Amino acid sequence: MTKITILIHCKDQSGIIAAVTNFIALNNGNIVYIDQHVDREQDIFFMRLESEFNQNSFDLDAFKKVFENLLAIKFNMKWRIYSSEEKINMALFVSKYDHCLFDILGRYVSGELHVNIPLIISNHLDLKPIADSFKIPFYHIPVSNANKAEAEAKQLKILKEHNIHFVVLARYMQIISKRIIEKYPNKIINIHHSFLPAFVGAKPYHSAFKRGVKIIGATSHYITEELDAGPIIEQDVAHISHAYTIENLIAKGRDLEKIVLSTAIKLHIDRKVMVYNNKTVIFS
Amino acid sequence: MTKITILIHCKDQSGIIAAVTNFIALNNGNIVYIDQHVDREQDIFFMRLESEFNQNSFDLDAFKKVFENLLAIKFNMKWRIYSSEEKINMALFVSKYDHCLFDILGRYVSGELHVNIPLIISNHLDLKPIADSFKIPFYHIPVSNANKAEAEAKQLKILKEHNIHFVVLARYMQIISKRIIEKYPNKIINIHHSFLPAFVGAKPYHSAFKRGVKIIGATSHYITEELDAGPIIEQDVAHISHAYTIENLIAKGRDLEKIVLSTAIKLHIDRKVMVYNNKTVIFS
Amino acid sequence: MTKITILIHCKDQSGIIAAVTNFIALNNGNIVYIDQHVDREQDIFFMRLESEFNQNSFDLDAFKKVFENLLAIKFNMKWRIYSSEEKINMALFVSKYDHCLFDILGRYVSGELHVNIPLIISNHLDLKPIADSFKIPFYHIPVSNANKAEAEAKQLKILKEHNIHFVVLARYMQIISKRIIEKYPNKIINIHHSFLPAFVGAKPYHSAFKRGVKIIGATSHYITEELDAGPIIEQDVAHISHAYTIENLIAKGRDLEKIVLSTAIKLHIDRKVMVYNNKTVIFS
Amino acid sequence: MTKITILIHCKDQSGIIAAVTNFIALNNGNIVYIDQHVDREQDIFFMRLESEFNQNSFDLDAFKKVFENLLAIKFNMKWRIYSSEEKINMALFVSKYDHCLFDILGRYVSGELHVNIPLIISNHLDLKPIADSFKIPFYHIPVSNANKAEAEAKQLKILKEHNIHFVVLARYMQIISKRIIEKYPNKIINIHHSFLPAFVGAKPYHSAFKRGVKIIGATSHYITEELDAGPIIEQDVAHISHAYTIENLIAKGRDLEKIVLSTAIKLHIDRKVMVYNNKTVIFS
Repeated sequence: MTKITILIHCKDQSGIIAAVTNFIALNNGNIVYIDQHVDREQDIFFMRLESEFNQNSFDLDAFKKVFENLLAIKFNMKWRIYSSEEKINMALFVSKYDHCLFDILGRYVSGELHVNIPLIISNHLDLKPIADSFKIPFYHIPVSNANKAEAEAKQLKILKEHNIHFVVLARYMQIISKRIIEKYPNKIINIHHSFLPAFVGAKPYHSAFKRGVKIIGATSHYITEELDAGPIIEQDVAHISHAYTIENLIAKGRDLEKIVLSTAIKLHIDRKVMVYNNKTVIFS
Repeated sequence: MTKITILIHCKDQSGIIAAVTNFIALNNGNIVYIDQHVDREQDIFFMRLESEFNQNSFDLDAFKKVFENLLAIKFNMKWRIYSSEEKINMALFVSKYDHCLFDILGRYVSGELHVNIPLIISNHLDLKPIADSFKIPFYHIPVSNANKAEAEAKQLKILKEHNIHFVVLARYMQIISKRIIEKYPNKIINIHHSFLPAFVGAKPYHSAFKRGVKIIGATSHYITEELDAGPIIEQDVAHISHAYTIENLIAKGRDLEKIVLSTAIKLHIDRKVMVYNNKTVIFS
Repeated sequence: MTKITILIHCKDQSGIIAAVTNFIALNNGNIVYIDQHVDREQDIFFMRLESEFNQNSFDLDAFKKVFENLLAIKFNMKWRIYSSEEKINMALFVSKYDHCLFDILGRYVSGELHVNIPLIISNHLDLKPIADSFKIPFYHIPVSNANKAEAEAKQLKILKEHNIHFVVLARYMQIISKRIIEKYPNKIINIHHSFLPAFVGAKPYHSAFKRGVKIIGATSHYITEELDAGPIIEQDVAHISHAYTIENLIAKGRDLEKIVLSTAIKLHIDRKVMVYNNKTVIFS
Repeated sequence: MTKITILIHCKDQSGIIAAVTNFIALNNGNIVYIDQHVDREQDIFFMRLESEFNQNSFDLDAFKKVFENLLAIKFNMKWRIYSSEEKINMALFVSKYDHCLFDILGRYVSGELHVNIPLIISNHLDLKPIADSFKIPFYHIPVSNANKAEAEAKQLKILKEHNIHFVVLARYMQIISKRIIEKYPNKIINIHHSFLPAFVGAKPYHSAFKRGVKIIGATSHYITEELDAGPIIEQDVAHISHAYTIENLIAKGRDLEKIVLSTAIKLHIDRKVMVYNNKTVIFS
């Protein structure tokens, strides 16, 4: 059996759903998931569909070619079709905080994440023992203002050599420059330790403490050139009180950060995220 | 323009989505919402679809007839089709607590609920002034063990005379008997002041206090003959602590109860609930 | 029996708790609630205490005088002592939205709020029928750029005549000027329809939609001269998805707004809020 | 500097807070945390207090002795006093699920948990590699109906040899018998994968699926002889929908389970839990 996921977006038009579902039926596919979204303001249609094909003879490349010719051209679609067997490659960037790293690697080892992790890159050596204990290659690339361009060139080279599909910044404390972002558009996932757009930038827990908020949050988003302003994938919050010190906020925040980041990673791996117009459509 | 909502369920089969969306396209409809669910265990397919028809000549009765002949028979569907203009009639049953009643009537007056409320029935006179101030007819039908059958006969007569489509028990403290339930299957919405299935029956806040739980809840469900065991529509919870007295739990619970009940009412009115096998499918 | 609430704040010093609890014991009081908070950064001590005195001869004025002489002077305390019998006067300011108004008045009628509501002030006539049905005097004071000073003078006059202790802006859509704020410092409670400090100012739901957040919020705070920047009393949030239109956000937000505002009002009435340094201490 | 935590409970009486805080003041201590709770129904007083003593000469044993003689006897208190330097010993019991184990060990390595973990006990070998990678001794003790008494005797022997203060069942799938419970009363922390008291016993996610609940939960509690009925320490919940399969519930539940269990462990380690009457007082 072959199982595929289809993601489509195009201008909203009548008959798209009928055309696509007919096409699946004609190919003897069984639709096991279908959801669509229309952005009425922008007049854009989004669709995610999972289908199973039981015949041994199912040929994904042929299917894609016919899909392109029969449907995509007609409706002027942007589309992606994935086989569920495909496993993509994820790189982790870390610095000194270990809670997100532990959470991701724990899930990885358990088989919860359908992904390969060929490597971890860090600007510090602190977390190397963790990478070692999980037997994942660890690349130490120090970053300073002086060597930033050179360090990023090294990072890019490693990413390319290992055929990395997307990058996760697991509390990596450096700003990623345009050089890397433009190679991985909507493919670099960050965790910001605030409820964006509140408290953009450095030290959000300190700002939250100063402002006296009653709730803190964490936000996972794709990075773009503007700091902490990229498309949001997932957010969550926790109630706090005046009795929380900054240290308490940081401790409480760690639990939010790791769950929110891992949730975003799973959504990305499972092809449930579509990005447009600096926003995301998140399919269930 | 005519806008309709279609709800379908039947045995899961290939080609249903294609057939239905084709049918809408052939009728020049524009699908503005489509969602489906398959219960894999029971092999049941559920679908909810909203479509707009711009032509003046659109004839809902004719559409229904052709839908039945072309699709429903073929796939052995159970289906319902509603025009969005239709406003159904909701009856409220209350006793002495006023928080759910105030919440529902406030939303009703604001136009938030697309429904008519022709009447309120109560076994006590306490809330009559509220009904009066909102200018809704109030029927006082005392209920005792002795007169229960007679009281319910009166209630049924009033519901029938006013062509009531569904009933909301807004903290009505009486058990509804089979006599009424079988006339309104999956059409009587209750609010139970616990996180079901925990704390079935009377005095759930007292039981929650005794058990020392750290979270309380409220559950809105369709009533069935078995007490507090009907299909759940909506639930929500709130964190509490050891410092909460029973009175505090009751006060905190009121906010949960009213929001959960009103949310369930809106889902029902908006035709977003499908019931099967003592569970619900809730469309977004 | 007399029940009192004592609120204290002063520089943190050794022996305050012992001194205050000794004083209560000497007066034959039974402490039924005590909580304290120390802001370590600012070195400020906060305390809230409830005590019951069973003797008929208990004299609150005498108690206050001795408290001042024996304790307050020694520790250089700011303090307030209230009898639980005291009922304060709350004024409501509204415009056209009715959901917060309904929620507050429903609780008021139920006896949930230990307060008097002598009047409602509005710049529009839309909600007068609601005030009438709850039999609360309604003052219609139109506000424009041209007449703002005059309108606020009228408002102040009414507040003074009715001996109003604090004001609630229940989705009152006008900015309150310094003229009124300085007469009611930390005594004007607003509800802002966002998770502050995100989306300050007008149309926060539109901004939330544009930014593509996955959670919306509401914040109740005391107003200060800087817009939406006053001390936060209460916040809550709700999860949303890409499928929410702006209208859906507004509808979902209404439930947040009313519960958050009413919660803040109850905290204020129950003397559970202490303000300092543009933040609040919220006692449980 | 010495920092101590004092936990007291006794019959509610006038003057306890004054007496204790006076005693601290007389010993030149600075109270940095104080909270109390009175169970009005049972008439029991609970108190938690943290105090710092700056003098080098502070003698904890002498302090305890005088505390007993001056205060405990007078008020008939049960009390415990801990130095914050003390690190207690925690044993982990696991079976095959690794998510709670990873979460606990990640926090342990990070220094988030002020505890020693001298050993892990399991009835299966599956998680041995994790114990090895964290360099924690792993004892494999298979358990069957036939050898249960013998296996538990081995477990008890190991716990005693390593001077274990409390035990955490990190998804250990065996029922612990009275033999062990009576040696560790209110010292064995379990995580149950439901919102207790709903879905006691085996396969709660299957039961939740069958009942059609809209929220799932996890509960951490001290075990007692009655299954899943011990004092609750912490609970949390997550919203789900009809679209969740049992596998989805299990996956979503893992995130709840690990955070709830780790939170309960931290509360226990930080001496913030008092147990009475099969309930807990949880200090902040």
